Amino acid sequence: MTEDRDALAAQLDKEHVFHSWSAQAALAPLVVAGGLGTRVWDHSGRTYLDFSSQLVNVNIGHQHPRVVAAIQEQAATLATIGPATANLTRGEAAKRIAARAPAGMDKVFFTNGGADANENAIRMARLHTGRDKVVSTYRSYHGNTGAAIVSTGDWRRLPNEYARGHVHVFGPYLYRSEFWATTPEEECERALQHLRRVVECEGPQSVAAILLETVPGTAGIMVPPPGYLAGVRALADEHGIVLILDEVMAGFGRTGEWFALDAHDVVPDLIVFAKGVNSGYVPVGGVVLSNAIAATFDDRVFPGGLTYSGHPLAAASIVASIDAMAEEGIVDNARKIGTDVLGPGLAELAEKHPVIGEARGVGVFWALELVADRATRAPVAPAVMGRAKAELVSRGVIPFIADNRIHVVPPCVVTADEVAEALAAYDAVLTLLDEELT
Amino acid sequence: MTEDRDALAAQLDKEHVFHSWSAQAALAPLVVAGGLGTRVWDHSGRTYLDFSSQLVNVNIGHQHPRVVAAIQEQAATLATIGPATANLTRGEAAKRIAARAPAGMDKVFFTNGGADANENAIRMARLHTGRDKVVSTYRSYHGNTGAAIVSTGDWRRLPNEYARGHVHVFGPYLYRSEFWATTPEEECERALQHLRRVVECEGPQSVAAILLETVPGTAGIMVPPPGYLAGVRALADEHGIVLILDEVMAGFGRTGEWFALDAHDVVPDLIVFAKGVNSGYVPVGGVVLSNAIAATFDDRVFPGGLTYSGHPLAAASIVASIDAMAEEGIVDNARKIGTDVLGPGLAELAEKHPVIGEARGVGVFWALELVADRATRAPVAPAVMGRAKAELVSRGVIPFIADNRIHVVPPCVVTADEVAEALAAYDAVLTLLDEELT
Repeated sequence: MTEDRDALAAQLDKEHVFHSWSAQAALAPLVVAGGLGTRVWDHSGRTYLDFSSQLVNVNIGHQHPRVVAAIQEQAATLATIGPATANLTRGEAAKRIAARAPAGMDKVFFTNGGADANENAIRMARLHTGRDKVVSTYRSYHGNTGAAIVSTGDWRRLPNEYARGHVHVFGPYLYRSEFWATTPEEECERALQHLRRVVECEGPQSVAAILLETVPGTAGIMVPPPGYLAGVRALADEHGIVLILDEVMAGFGRTGEWFALDAHDVVPDLIVFAKGVNSGYVPVGGVVLSNAIAATFDDRVFPGGLTYSGHPLAAASIVASIDAMAEEGIVDNARKIGTDVLGPGLAELAEKHPVIGEARGVGVFWALELVADRATRAPVAPAVMGRAKAELVSRGVIPFIADNRIHVVPPCVVTADEVAEALAAYDAVLTLLDEELT
Repeated sequence: MTEDRDALAAQLDKEHVFHSWSAQAALAPLVVAGGLGTRVWDHSGRTYLDFSSQLVNVNIGHQHPRVVAAIQEQAATLATIGPATANLTRGEAAKRIAARAPAGMDKVFFTNGGADANENAIRMARLHTGRDKVVSTYRSYHGNTGAAIVSTGDWRRLPNEYARGHVHVFGPYLYRSEFWATTPEEECERALQHLRRVVECEGPQSVAAILLETVPGTAGIMVPPPGYLAGVRALADEHGIVLILDEVMAGFGRTGEWFALDAHDVVPDLIVFAKGVNSGYVPVGGVVLSNAIAATFDDRVFPGGLTYSGHPLAAASIVASIDAMAEEGIVDNARKIGTDVLGPGLAELAEKHPVIGEARGVGVFWALELVADRATRAPVAPAVMGRAKAELVSRGVIPFIADNRIHVVPPCVVTADEVAEALAAYDAVLTLLDEELT
């Protein structure tokens, strides 16, 4: 009976569901029927430790009872209402988000996800400055829609280059420095110099925004060196450029901070959020605006919007999620787990396994970069990553795989025991991969 | 106490919520706390008849108990899961949508709303054909993101023209014909000829898609004349162009059909949906693909996707909504109300009130076009529409106002009594507006 449901789920998926970022024919996706905390399971009761947080969004863990209850209660009261109304739950959600942002950022524009949040942040920057260009990095991902996908630097941009006004630069990434740097200080200084030179050559008076993930996520979890973001802020100020920090993946606990920017000496003009704000229990994203940018649209129509902006069901899940994260110390847990357990554990794996080129990260936001050769730092072949994925899943761990990296990104509620369980699986699989190197 | 909640909702909204498509300073939005069927209310118990269906999305009415229960149950089981999994509820939702589409359209790609659904439909068309250009109409709205907003024809496109490859044409609209036509047949023939000439002059081999709302919605609810969509289909076939029908507003009951295209002799290659599919109870949208276009991505990666694609909470609300609409005859109700009550009632108002230039529509999808002069058809001034809105709200009716038109777009569950109540309010307000004409 329950196995029938797994079979039915797989069959309906095959027949009727078209999947993201995939060739469709060979897909055989894992059936997931339920979950709790760091675990998910299928209908037959096979359970998995979710060290992907799905797409690095389930920060509060699966099925947090307080968020589930808030969704149920809001559904019973008012599931949906248009954005032209005022709604108390929406106001409470916006208040909580603004309270976590730096001072002077009081208003929130809600969207359906991270992509359209970036679209609207770019729109705000262009209209606020009267300029066109958006500078972002090659190693980045900002979403799948028009401007967001062309802001994106990775391969996903290439078949989608139908938006204009986008310029790409390299960010700091010492392990694969684009600047021939050998120390974090050098990498920071040179990355800033490179950004400054591109802005100067593009013409600062044509640059509306610099758009950066505070900590680039899918591109490899590169925590910026101290001083980098402050340097970008200074450059932006010098030329009246809007600084947009994309916190879609890094925000709301992932780095052990409410916003990843809290660990850096920087106040942006716009913060883009999604994922962790409600762990994706209801689709939502948004932009936190500086009061200066908000004021641009006091008497001038903001030409952007959407039917589900400020959706009450999403708002209720945000309120419950932020309150639960605060009261249950979930952001603190992410920081402590990172410092005391996950960081040291991954460092140990990196010492033991020649296939690991670098382990890096913060909080519950880590990357293991796998290399064929530690000296040349050549990435392992895609087939090696395919094997890593299959071997981890067969050991009951759902990994997050990107290029030649395993991203170790469990929910922020992960326990030390769960980390130990996952580290044992990584250890076993990395041992297999080490053997492929010879 | 309850009035305090209205005041608190208004205050939090003012302080923390940035609104769609608006100048922010002067906003004083209606507080909405709850609803049922065709009515909504604030915390103090003031109730309103919702003849806007909010943004023409609450097709099943507010707080349909079966959809609410489905959301609550799915929330208790599994609120969210990533798109790379298989999930039974998602499969059931996709199956139900595909079952309502024409034969040969078996797969569904889920997005967060109508805008990113149009983005992905355009992406599919471009990759399927290997061509760039997208032809859409000046009188259209397709969403607020990169390609969607530049496909859009109305004023909202103008501050957002950062996407390339978009070409605009005029569609059939006899009341304000762009083709000097005097009969529906002439308007149809000339609109097709105009479209053909633009495609020929752009170069058919460069045109990836023709993107049309089956019935243009926000632009004025212009039901296409018989033969128009069939003619577009023939033109598309002649040149290997993908035909995308945007059913975001027109689909799932609004016109008294499951899809508005069901009343026309046309099968598109891609159908874009959102709004009515689950009445917006959970943010969702999507694309139904022809099997030919789906097959393009069997062995080739589809370069588009998003974190909340196929969200289980949205899927559960789709399953419940489609099942309830089918079993409770809600689509039939929309058709019958349109034919027997709402259409005749609006025709009567049009005869009585000189300020009405034309009443047109189908199902629960109608527009009253207000004119300063019936002979010249000059639109009434914006201030007249502002007055219309305020007077209707003061009479307990939430209207949908667009340019010089009142769109009469109640939920598909609206009763004859509710229509009578709203018609009385329209009648009283139109009498006031008639007096302004002299």
